[in-house]
Formats: sequence, structure tokens, C-alpha cells
Amino acid sequence: MTSPLLSDVDIREVGPRDGLQGEAPLPPEDRARLVAALLDAGITHIEAVSFVSPKAVPAMARPHEVLAALPPMADVTVCALVPNVRGAEMALEAEVDEITVTVAASVEYNRRNVNMTIDESVSAIAGICRLSVDAAVPVDAVVSCAFGSPYEGDIPAVQVAELAGRLLEVGISALTLADTTGMATPRVLDEVLSRTGTEVRLHLHDTRGTAMLNAYAAMELGVKRFDTSVGGLGGSPFTDTAAGNLATEDFVALLDDLGVHSGVSLEGLLRASALAEQLVGHELAGHVWRVGPRLARG
Amino acid sequence: MTSPLLSDVDIREVGPRDGLQGEAPLPPEDRARLVAALLDAGITHIEAVSFVSPKAVPAMARPHEVLAALPPMADVTVCALVPNVRGAEMALEAEVDEITVTVAASVEYNRRNVNMTIDESVSAIAGICRLSVDAAVPVDAVVSCAFGSPYEGDIPAVQVAELAGRLLEVGISALTLADTTGMATPRVLDEVLSRTGTEVRLHLHDTRGTAMLNAYAAMELGVKRFDTSVGGLGGSPFTDTAAGNLATEDFVALLDDLGVHSGVSLEGLLRASALAEQLVGHELAGHVWRVGPRLARG
Repeated sequence: MTSPLLSDVDIREVGPRDGLQGEAPLPPEDRARLVAALLDAGITHIEAVSFVSPKAVPAMARPHEVLAALPPMADVTVCALVPNVRGAEMALEAEVDEITVTVAASVEYNRRNVNMTIDESVSAIAGICRLSVDAAVPVDAVVSCAFGSPYEGDIPAVQVAELAGRLLEVGISALTLADTTGMATPRVLDEVLSRTGTEVRLHLHDTRGTAMLNAYAAMELGVKRFDTSVGGLGGSPFTDTAAGNLATEDFVALLDDLGVHSGVSLEGLLRASALAEQLVGHELAGHVWRVGPRLARG
Repeated sequence: MTSPLLSDVDIREVGPRDGLQGEAPLPPEDRARLVAALLDAGITHIEAVSFVSPKAVPAMARPHEVLAALPPMADVTVCALVPNVRGAEMALEAEVDEITVTVAASVEYNRRNVNMTIDESVSAIAGICRLSVDAAVPVDAVVSCAFGSPYEGDIPAVQVAELAGRLLEVGISALTLADTTGMATPRVLDEVLSRTGTEVRLHLHDTRGTAMLNAYAAMELGVKRFDTSVGGLGGSPFTDTAAGNLATEDFVALLDDLGVHSGVSLEGLLRASALAEQLVGHELAGHVWRVGPRLARG
């Protein structure tokens, strides 16, 4: 190795939420089957549902039914995305283990995505944090466009760090930096992480073919928490420049080769991605789901 | 940066040969147009043709006509792949600037690809080197499956280095290590390059989504010569586990961001990839040709 890497990383699987939200809607029982297949593969942290308006995002309708259809689980953190206080109330009533909220580092992306200023989004997150503290449920804030915006271009690292600081002040438990439209590079990662610290989670998209590269460069910098999506499912319904997420199988195949522990079984993931492909009815964006691990054909 | 990177890299464009060989055959004048568009983008080293049997690889037929249709060029190294002494004679008659030859580090891949043992391939390369020395034309040996074989799995690094040594003994001028089926990882690269040294060229395929990652990890190790293909065109006609090459635009976009000089214009490459897409009549495998550079939509 050129640099010593970490001994282990934490993977949060986001395929059933971020992955499926842009697909043709699937019934709750199929979404629960996908979650179950991912848990079978050893995933212990999963964004399973979102409590958004079914009119805005039809593919995420009926989250209660997804949660009700899940198998009994020990030691799994089930996470729900919520857009506002009303969504957080529903998620807490449904007894999820973690809540994710989003705000963009880009003024224009935030406006187009949720029609709010960044200040309004931070205020909404503050309200969600107050509710969640009472329920003792952690809130992870996902900062979109943290490494660049398709509208404003580069976002100054100091601006991302300042937003992160405000979010921590209003009570979030964890911070995720999202490369929503694939604008991160090792240079940009270094600039932003030197301001925010490396105790963040990264959510990487492969829009410019850099998701694996950025995950590797981030591990070299000390980041140990990543969002990934089975088969690379996903993209953003709000911009045409987003492509799939970092594929869970591709990343785990790399980690296995590098001797970095993830606790996830690549064989199990390949069963989950086969199911994902069957459910969405088209080829997936990732790579290893298609060709298998590097030593499988020996 | 986590490690100091190089100040500049040398790119050899292989789209017109490795990229087009698996596509439906294009007329020589179209292949020459693609070469010309790449030269316009600042490419100065290009694998333009191969002198193989048109029966075996119909897409590479009529190399003389491609070469004859090229624009006048100063300071460009035009390279031809040759499979044997007869091919080398034709390439030298056609006055190419460089010859590439191939041999696999995998016994079984070599047998399936050219129906020869590795010893037989090395002997053939020795014959080609004798001819080329007289003509003062350099011979670059491309070692396929240098980072793993779809048949044998891992290839011991010492075996790759031993083959490299034999090739240098029989007179090659330069060595390229090819990740023919996308089995390289930063770990494998480190193992092989620690035996061969880093004064090699890398030819990376994106079968497992690792081409950019491997190029980056190799640059961290000190490698400064890379093969890339416009739009990620390419794959191997001899195995179903090969996918496209590292895309020239994706790589140059990364290099530009990292401040590593390549002498190639991303804008010019995007014109070349638009032409490539039009010529092959389907979407290309790369990324940046589709969405543009990270700051283009600001």
C-alpha cells in the first residue's frame, strides 16, 4: 500500500431508499424483500424507507408497510429519511433506529430540491432534532453538494464546514457529506475534510466515474464511514447530472482485496443485487454484480 | 493530497485500435477521422491501427488506408499493434513510429488469444524486435493479464517480472502491463510494480469499476505512463469478462483537477468522444463524455 489503510469501515446501505426512489414504484413487500436480502448479506445499517409525500416520490410510498414486512432483526440500525417535522413524527412513531435529514451546501440545489433557503432547512432540522432527542433517536444530516454544485460550481470548503458546524449546534448526531452529482475528486475531498475533520460519513455518486477512486482517497485520509447502494442503484430525481451511487458489491470487493473489514459478505451481496436487478427490471449501474469477484472464475 | 503526485503523465490513446476492434467494422476514412479528432485534442501518442488478419478482426481491416488518410502530423507517435513477424514487416513498410506486441502473463489466456505458449510468444516477439531494431522503430510489449487472469486467478508478481525480464532481454524498448479483465487493485498493483519497477505503462480496464482508482493508486506509486481510450471504448473480443478501457476524458478530467499535466485538452476530447459515439452508433462506457467536466455547468 502507498499509505496504511484502515482496519475496518462501516457501510450504510442506501439502495432501498436512495436507490429505489428514482425507479418505477415497487410494492412494499418487494422493497422489504430487498432489505431482507441485504441484511442476509451482513448489512447492519440500512436506509430502508423515507417518510416523504407519496405524491412527490411515489416510489417511497407506504413506508410503514415496508417496515412491517421486515424480518425480525437483532443489532441492525434501520434508518428513515424524513423531509420535515411531520415526517420525523411518523418515523419516530414507526420506531426507526435513526433518522436522516438533508440540506444542500448549494443554495440553488436546496431551492430546487426542497424550495427552501439553507437557513430554512437548518431551522427545520433543528425542529426534527428536538423531537428526536426526546425519543433518543439519532439524527444524521446529509449535506448534499458538499463537493460542488451543478449550479454554483465549487462550494468553498469553509462554507461546507460552517454549515456542518451549524447542524451540530442544532443537535444532529452525525454528519454525512454527499457528492450528489459526482463532483468530488481527491483534491476536493482533501480540502473539505481538512475543514470538517474525517469523522464524517461519505455518500458518493459515480457521475464522473470517480466514486471508487474517491472512496479510496477518503480512506487514505482516514474516513471510515460510507453510504453505498446495492448494484449502484440510485441517482437524484432532481438533477439530470446525477448517476448511481457507489455500488456496495464493487466497494466490498475492493475492501476484501485490501484486507479492510466490512462485515459484509460479497456472496450475499451478489444474491441481493440479483434480486435488485429482477425487481427494477433493468441492468444495474455497478460492475461486480455483473462479472463477479476477481477470483471467482479461476 | 495524501501523497505528492506527479507533475505530468504521458497518455497513449488506444481508442482507434483497442477501442474499435470489438465494434462493428468502420471504414478506414472514419477511423482516420477519429484519430484526427484525437490529435486535434492534443493527443501525441496513439495506437491507430493493427496489422492483424482481417478475417480474425474485421474491424481492423485496411490499416494502410487509415494511415494514408491521416492528416499531416508533427511530433506524433503513431503506433500499430502487430501479431507476428509478417504484421511487423507490414507495419514497418507503412512507416509507423512504434510497434506494440502482446503476450499474456496467463498461460491459458495466451493459448486462447493466440494459440501459443508463452515461450512461443516470446520467440515471436524476439523476431519482431530483430526486424524493428534494423528499422530503428521501438517495440512496446503489452503483457496482458498482468494483474490476474480469468482462468488462473492471481498471477504471482515474480512470474510477471520474470516475463518482463525475458522481453527486455529479447529487445523490447518499453513495457506495458495490462489489466485485461479488470483484476487489478491497489494491493495487486503494489505487489507487481514492486517487482517490475514503475517505469512501465499501465493499460487499465474498468471491468470491476476500478480503472480510475487503479490509475490514481499507480500514480501515487510513481507510474507516469497510461493507455486510455476515448469514451472508454473497448474490451477484449476474446473474453466475456472484459469491459471498456479507462476513458481518456474521465482520466484527463481527473488529471486537470489534480493539477497533473497531460497536454491533452478536455474540450477537444469531448469533441472526439461525440464523434466516436456517432461512429459506433451506441452510448459509450465512460462518464465525462456524457455529463461534461465538473465545472462546466456552473
